[in-house]
Amino acid sequence: MEQETTLLNKIDSPADLRKLHPEQLRQVSSELRRYIIDLVSANPGHLGANLGVVELTVALHYAFDTPYDKIIWDVGHQAYGHKILTGRRDLFATNRKYGGISGFPKMSESEYDAFGTGHSSTSISAALGMAVAARERGEKRHVVAVIGDGAMTAGLAFEGLNNAGISNTDLLVILNDNNIAIDENVGALKEYLLDITTSRTYNKFKNKVWNSLGIFGKYTSSARKLAAQIEAGFKSSLLDKSNLFEGMNFRYFGPIDGHDAVYMSKIFEDLKRIPGPKLLHCITTKGKGFKKAEKEQTVFHAPGRFDRLTGEILHSPVKDTAASFQTVFGKTIVELAEMNGRISAVTPAMPTGSALNIMMHRFPERVYDVGIAEQHAVTFSAGLAAMGMIPYCHIYSTFLQRSYDQIIHDVAIQKLHVVFCIDRGGLVGQDGSTHHGFFDIAFMRSIPNITVAAPMDERELRNMLYTAQLEKNSMPFSIRYPRRKGTYKEWHTPFEEIEIGKSRMVSDGKDIAILSIGYPGNTVSRAIKKLSGENFSIAHYDMRFTAPLDREALHDIFRKFSHIITVEDGILSGGFGSAVLEFMSDNGYNAKITRLGIPDYFVEHGLPEELYKECGLDSEAIELTIRKMILEK
Amino acid sequence: MEQETTLLNKIDSPADLRKLHPEQLRQVSSELRRYIIDLVSANPGHLGANLGVVELTVALHYAFDTPYDKIIWDVGHQAYGHKILTGRRDLFATNRKYGGISGFPKMSESEYDAFGTGHSSTSISAALGMAVAARERGEKRHVVAVIGDGAMTAGLAFEGLNNAGISNTDLLVILNDNNIAIDENVGALKEYLLDITTSRTYNKFKNKVWNSLGIFGKYTSSARKLAAQIEAGFKSSLLDKSNLFEGMNFRYFGPIDGHDAVYMSKIFEDLKRIPGPKLLHCITTKGKGFKKAEKEQTVFHAPGRFDRLTGEILHSPVKDTAASFQTVFGKTIVELAEMNGRISAVTPAMPTGSALNIMMHRFPERVYDVGIAEQHAVTFSAGLAAMGMIPYCHIYSTFLQRSYDQIIHDVAIQKLHVVFCIDRGGLVGQDGSTHHGFFDIAFMRSIPNITVAAPMDERELRNMLYTAQLEKNSMPFSIRYPRRKGTYKEWHTPFEEIEIGKSRMVSDGKDIAILSIGYPGNTVSRAIKKLSGENFSIAHYDMRFTAPLDREALHDIFRKFSHIITVEDGILSGGFGSAVLEFMSDNGYNAKITRLGIPDYFVEHGLPEELYKECGLDSEAIELTIRKMILEK
Repeated sequence: MEQETTLLNKIDSPADLRKLHPEQLRQVSSELRRYIIDLVSANPGHLGANLGVVELTVALHYAFDTPYDKIIWDVGHQAYGHKILTGRRDLFATNRKYGGISGFPKMSESEYDAFGTGHSSTSISAALGMAVAARERGEKRHVVAVIGDGAMTAGLAFEGLNNAGISNTDLLVILNDNNIAIDENVGALKEYLLDITTSRTYNKFKNKVWNSLGIFGKYTSSARKLAAQIEAGFKSSLLDKSNLFEGMNFRYFGPIDGHDAVYMSKIFEDLKRIPGPKLLHCITTKGKGFKKAEKEQTVFHAPGRFDRLTGEILHSPVKDTAASFQTVFGKTIVELAEMNGRISAVTPAMPTGSALNIMMHRFPERVYDVGIAEQHAVTFSAGLAAMGMIPYCHIYSTFLQRSYDQIIHDVAIQKLHVVFCIDRGGLVGQDGSTHHGFFDIAFMRSIPNITVAAPMDERELRNMLYTAQLEKNSMPFSIRYPRRKGTYKEWHTPFEEIEIGKSRMVSDGKDIAILSIGYPGNTVSRAIKKLSGENFSIAHYDMRFTAPLDREALHDIFRKFSHIITVEDGILSGGFGSAVLEFMSDNGYNAKITRLGIPDYFVEHGLPEELYKECGLDSEAIELTIRKMILEK
Repeated sequence: MEQETTLLNKIDSPADLRKLHPEQLRQVSSELRRYIIDLVSANPGHLGANLGVVELTVALHYAFDTPYDKIIWDVGHQAYGHKILTGRRDLFATNRKYGGISGFPKMSESEYDAFGTGHSSTSISAALGMAVAARERGEKRHVVAVIGDGAMTAGLAFEGLNNAGISNTDLLVILNDNNIAIDENVGALKEYLLDITTSRTYNKFKNKVWNSLGIFGKYTSSARKLAAQIEAGFKSSLLDKSNLFEGMNFRYFGPIDGHDAVYMSKIFEDLKRIPGPKLLHCITTKGKGFKKAEKEQTVFHAPGRFDRLTGEILHSPVKDTAASFQTVFGKTIVELAEMNGRISAVTPAMPTGSALNIMMHRFPERVYDVGIAEQHAVTFSAGLAAMGMIPYCHIYSTFLQRSYDQIIHDVAIQKLHVVFCIDRGGLVGQDGSTHHGFFDIAFMRSIPNITVAAPMDERELRNMLYTAQLEKNSMPFSIRYPRRKGTYKEWHTPFEEIEIGKSRMVSDGKDIAILSIGYPGNTVSRAIKKLSGENFSIAHYDMRFTAPLDREALHDIFRKFSHIITVEDGILSGGFGSAVLEFMSDNGYNAKITRLGIPDYFVEHGLPEELYKECGLDSEAIELTIRKMILEK
């Protein structure tokens, strides 16, 4: 297969790509696809989305004058081809590794990364900002946003469209329509797009409708003619109701085949000359060109290591048999739903990642996948709760940031019985700075009326999920847990109610007290175990709740201990340790406290072990902190 | 005018309304309108929006079986008529007063308030949740969301529509289209709605298009016939491109006259029998029936006291001549924009409230009103900043909660030079719990890379606005200030740079140090002044920055003082005082600290003075805290 990379080898920047003949774009695409498969098979990352945009990537960098022209990759997990073509071909082996390049576009990494992404649906707003700035500065710069049909369902994308539609700004939005997010895409918009692309009743594009919108009034008739020419070139033109985008004042083009790089590069050249906001609808296949990835799109979204030829997933040798927190959540919620008919579950487009697919199978009518729409997920849950249901609203910590206002305004103020299941709490690892879940402890604890809990292990998770649905606890309740294996082989223990705000002592000791919240309690336990032969002893409390704090236990602890360590996998500013300081001060205690947690900067990507070490949150760092404190006593 | 209220007098609940003959709805509407004008003229509140929905309110409660059927009022400032018809006619004189009824719907206030609102665009999501719950419980309940065209531009509304469109749920969305928010509405959607309602080229509704969407497939042919009948009854039926909503799988009806209560009540009766998601487009006039309010819609959004007959605004006798923080902001940003060509400004639909209308007049092309779209406002600003502009992104504290993720993900991680102007910081008064701005200090300070500042007076505000745009400070910068009059008659002082993270001593003293942030520093000064004759002295530091803290000053303070009070008009959990505790603990100091701020519950409505008193944040409470601390020393 060596001869396959004869072109890609020589592309050190898009300038090299642009020296090629248009017909050679097919070969470049083929080589780029192979390169991505080969490298991602050995060094795991996102696969399906990247294979789907190979031709789009090649055509964009061929037609547009990057980096002067700006391409914004929505979500950004599909930018591998972009990175490889923009000077990072050899660095790509370090993708997502500690100290290596990021799996997402990053302005600090390359001038070709016009805007950093990670969360979905930001591209249209950012691109509009850039296009407006270019216009104001009198620069003839093209700005392109590439956004998937999944990301298009989020409100932010709509807000961007709505504003762009009246902005009199040149802007190209490419709708990369593969009809899937990580899981199957849902929502009216999906139905609508499917309808456009499959209907046999296309009508000719109606220039008069367009003109009646007044968009072209201010432009030359040559642009108008060009637009008509482009449309005439499509196999099929505009469907009667494709003017959902026309309704937003966007000139709609498409749908076109997103796997024909040569054709697309020509279309882009033409579109450069059409003024105003434009939307090009490209149909692509997630996983394109790799048979197994095309077939099993959810598995191959980010498949881990796999055989580069057969696509067989290469599972790591099983180290332990403990179930993940996700599996325990997914199975436990089914048990609870069987017991309590008022329980339902809500997920914003993450049924597989959350393990709610288990409940979907058992109670299809009681799980609501609302699409990529975290704000709506929370307010919809509030609506369910207002009518007496108990929704378990499951959102990753990093994406819950999008629901911050809805948590306050629609749930907390109204004291509605919504259970927030905050997944991926803590440092998530290789997805890096945009995806870590380390603000939730701080931002949830400052909101009144909400119980803020975090289990140290999967049995505690079960008991918290059980406790949250009890009639007497019919207030907002949040439970955050990491993307991790649990601790026990046998997690399926009988449900036990946990009193709200009640901590538990994990181990007793005399010299120092360690107060931990959630999963890091396990690291604390390991550190204490290592020190078991020393001539001092450490008490360890799993606090379980950041709000309300266990005041009774804290009074005991502060009376007994002059030296205390707090441990959390969240931001230190305003977090759990800060809550302990508030208690100490408010109650007139005075202990020496060392707070361990995430420091005041955005931690990058790497293995969780590497990142926790960097943050001083691994077992060695805790051991060191203990020894230092003992010496200071 | 006494005979005018012969019907309204007898309506103690919607059941009484429903006893009337349909034709009497006109008189009820007329009486209700007069009642609202009379009471709001004396006891200020929202006027224009309430006058616009008088007939809609009457027709809804006449046709629907409230409270069993659910009406959700988006934003909720238009629910006065609803409150008056649902048992709160006599209580309405206490509207927005301390201890009185709220100016917004509140579940805790009445069973007729199906869902609490205040922030815009939540109604569709909440209504969908309720409708789904009703369906699951087998209840034949109608759920209606009433949403304005302004609120429809926010992403959350779109997320709700997108999900409702595929939910197979009976849901009626009433689009209350008055073509204005507080200021004039903007965005492509507005253009679109205007086009529907003014075009002379309506086409007949195409049932076959609707059928091709498959919505009616599952319903009876009688429902289909009924829908066709309703449509035939409209003066004009569906425009070709009104299927923006059809694209979302909503069955669109309208536009109809939103000031004909009799006609609307009949339409509602018919719509009850149409299954699935439906949208009824009603055209209303903000301020309807009160001439001055119809003409000056922005002024009469919430006009303060006015003459109930002539509409003349009754200004309170001028107590002081100081300008408001808003005016100082609005004039200062123009000065800065004159000096620095890179400065632009962004507002999500609040040009008047922010005073950015001053800059709009001077530099129309450099102020961007993006509509009610706080998420987009921030990401759009990030796009501007990525291209070298310096956007001043102005958002009220309470609405900035909607942008929390965008602040982190699009601005802070990327270290972009966006200046957040956080208006309405602290307790806002009569708008109450949904509108207070008391989380921002806590949530902003925990985000890395952002300078978090708050001026104590309007001169400081000017200097902070100046400092934020300096080349050397090209990082995210936030400045929060209250809706208040300033301190000085002469605020227009020459710009002075403030060193980032540098506090200032307001007054020196020996016994206690008070550290304040932002406007409450003035209350502290007053308290200290009152105590000037006592035999102790108080030092007062205006810290200016919550992040970064002035470490140098804090080292001095903690070396010098054993007793410290912190004062902030934000939530205590995780706030400014908490940051001071963190500094103390991290640096091994040990002082007795009393933190004053907003306690751990949602403060209700009332005059700011009343609310600050309740929270122990008035001058008397600070005095008392000082005296207590002196005694304890």
